[in-house]
Amino acid sequence: MLSQQSQELIFSNSVAQAIEKWVNTARPSKLFVIADSNTAELCLPVIERESKVIADAHRIVFPAGETHKNLDTLASIWGELCDYGASRSAAVVNLGGGVVTDMGGFAAATFKRGIRFVNVPTTLLAAVDAAVGGKTGIDFHGFKNEIGAFCCADAVIISTLFFNTLPQSERMSGFAEMLKHSLIAGGDAFSRLTSVKEMDFAGAGFLELLKESVLVKKRIVEQDPTEKGLRKALNLGHTAGHAFESWALEQGKPVPHGYAVAWGLVVDLVLSHIQLGFPSETLRAVSAFIEENYGRIAIDCSDYDTLVEIMRHDKKNAGDGSISFTLLRAPGEVDVNRTATPEEISVALDIFRDLLHI
Amino acid sequence: MLSQQSQELIFSNSVAQAIEKWVNTARPSKLFVIADSNTAELCLPVIERESKVIADAHRIVFPAGETHKNLDTLASIWGELCDYGASRSAAVVNLGGGVVTDMGGFAAATFKRGIRFVNVPTTLLAAVDAAVGGKTGIDFHGFKNEIGAFCCADAVIISTLFFNTLPQSERMSGFAEMLKHSLIAGGDAFSRLTSVKEMDFAGAGFLELLKESVLVKKRIVEQDPTEKGLRKALNLGHTAGHAFESWALEQGKPVPHGYAVAWGLVVDLVLSHIQLGFPSETLRAVSAFIEENYGRIAIDCSDYDTLVEIMRHDKKNAGDGSISFTLLRAPGEVDVNRTATPEEISVALDIFRDLLHI
Repeated sequence: MLSQQSQELIFSNSVAQAIEKWVNTARPSKLFVIADSNTAELCLPVIERESKVIADAHRIVFPAGETHKNLDTLASIWGELCDYGASRSAAVVNLGGGVVTDMGGFAAATFKRGIRFVNVPTTLLAAVDAAVGGKTGIDFHGFKNEIGAFCCADAVIISTLFFNTLPQSERMSGFAEMLKHSLIAGGDAFSRLTSVKEMDFAGAGFLELLKESVLVKKRIVEQDPTEKGLRKALNLGHTAGHAFESWALEQGKPVPHGYAVAWGLVVDLVLSHIQLGFPSETLRAVSAFIEENYGRIAIDCSDYDTLVEIMRHDKKNAGDGSISFTLLRAPGEVDVNRTATPEEISVALDIFRDLLHI
Repeated sequence: MLSQQSQELIFSNSVAQAIEKWVNTARPSKLFVIADSNTAELCLPVIERESKVIADAHRIVFPAGETHKNLDTLASIWGELCDYGASRSAAVVNLGGGVVTDMGGFAAATFKRGIRFVNVPTTLLAAVDAAVGGKTGIDFHGFKNEIGAFCCADAVIISTLFFNTLPQSERMSGFAEMLKHSLIAGGDAFSRLTSVKEMDFAGAGFLELLKESVLVKKRIVEQDPTEKGLRKALNLGHTAGHAFESWALEQGKPVPHGYAVAWGLVVDLVLSHIQLGFPSETLRAVSAFIEENYGRIAIDCSDYDTLVEIMRHDKKNAGDGSISFTLLRAPGEVDVNRTATPEEISVALDIFRDLLHI
């Protein structure tokens, strides 16, 4: 098992300056920027005109989209690093969403047994999730992140600078992970987060909320870098969430990952209420917010068996036939080793539909 | 940079029993054996008939030879792990020489972000070098080990059981790394090692000498797993050694790696004598042993420029145009950050030829 855990998190909208500062300290022999076709067009020019270091870096650009997060693209990145003379002291800047930071991070982690890399997430989802915590990898043989490594970026530069290049639905998708973090953190984190006015993701206060959210993940990852226990806290909302996501895809009506997670959060909180007495007033507040901001998913009771079947094949399960969940006793009190029976899940889905008026 | 350093070393000729014992403790969900066509034919049957666990494991076999240590073979290993249902709690046994342990180790280190693996080196060179210390990887775009990771095996089972499947020249090749370790260790390690009678690699005492040699490497690697400093001690003999190896290949008269290292040791000790006063009587003892057991390499002074030019492109250099060497003040006293000028190297090559009667 691999791991490297030291990781500097820089929260700043002066992204070009932050990259330059890192480069001036780290002094790589050569700098590479890895981007996809979207971020090369929409994000790179923004920082390139402010920094000669970035403008002079060698660019490695691949077509945008999860379908390109594969071995062929990875091999072409390795090939460019070779062809353009990357030595052991070269460094990579990954500029993009989760596909870029996952695949660029894995390319760097394995080139000459590891060169340094910096993640510059350009989406809210990547900022709050993929870019932090050291999970790198590619999809392989139809499985997500089947090949990869635990290897933290040397630095992650987190900003709201590029969020205006995203459709609102993608921003809301990332926001769902922030909701999850606020429930894991407890206290008044959820109510402060959901008081963001009209979902203004570029507002002055939002970078501060984003920082708070990322630090929740950072603290958990530091205690359990290779996902042996506590890190499973971050799976809150994801057992039901993944099932909704796969089900919607099978129906030919795909939903954004974060929307599925938002609905999954409600299901997991219902199970938390049933099994662990999670407070019903908080459950109602969370469902109301999610219904208002994420709408509904059109399931009925004839879909329950399919959903349970999908959950049964979740790779997070222990392999003994049970279905694993991360649940909460209350906001801030996580229990990572829960299971639920198909009957309990059906009851929870009934209550979920009631709460969301489905 | 990746690293995982805990690594159990098991010295035993009861290899099948040692594997079974590891499996009974680690309890992997499924066991895979990775072998090349040679070790699948010559070594696997030896342990398979003694162990049902091994006989029942799924075999992944690829054609023997360094040319197969590439991305295509790696992808086929990942593919078989996928197709035969390796979960995160599966484990791999790498049965072979350096190609198998390097590539099988990298496949395991990156499958689902890392599954457990055990190295069972079948060659002396792999036992004393490749299988221990966490360097894994594949060749890529014509460069050796260009893609890889630092990731230690969970266990390495070291035996002399399979050495009789090797030609004597390959055994002597591995023995050169033991000579290197004995010089790094100091004391009477070199004289005890070179008193092995008629190079009897299967004798009762040899496993004990092998253990002593492997532990020299283990101690160094534990202090510097990702080769920032001290680990460069293990480069003793390798600057000149690699130059001899490349030069011989260019001449169309390839020599085994370990023979080149043996001659390289003499050159490095000559430089050690010139720069650091390494004792001349030890230098003479080492050269006499190497001449007797490894013979000579047919260079003359017209080859010096070519050899220096090859050394100049060694990836161990700092990148400032200088040529790096690991030298010794005396047996056991390593200086990892030496350089030598082309003139000094020419003088050292003259003395090298004198000592070896070339």
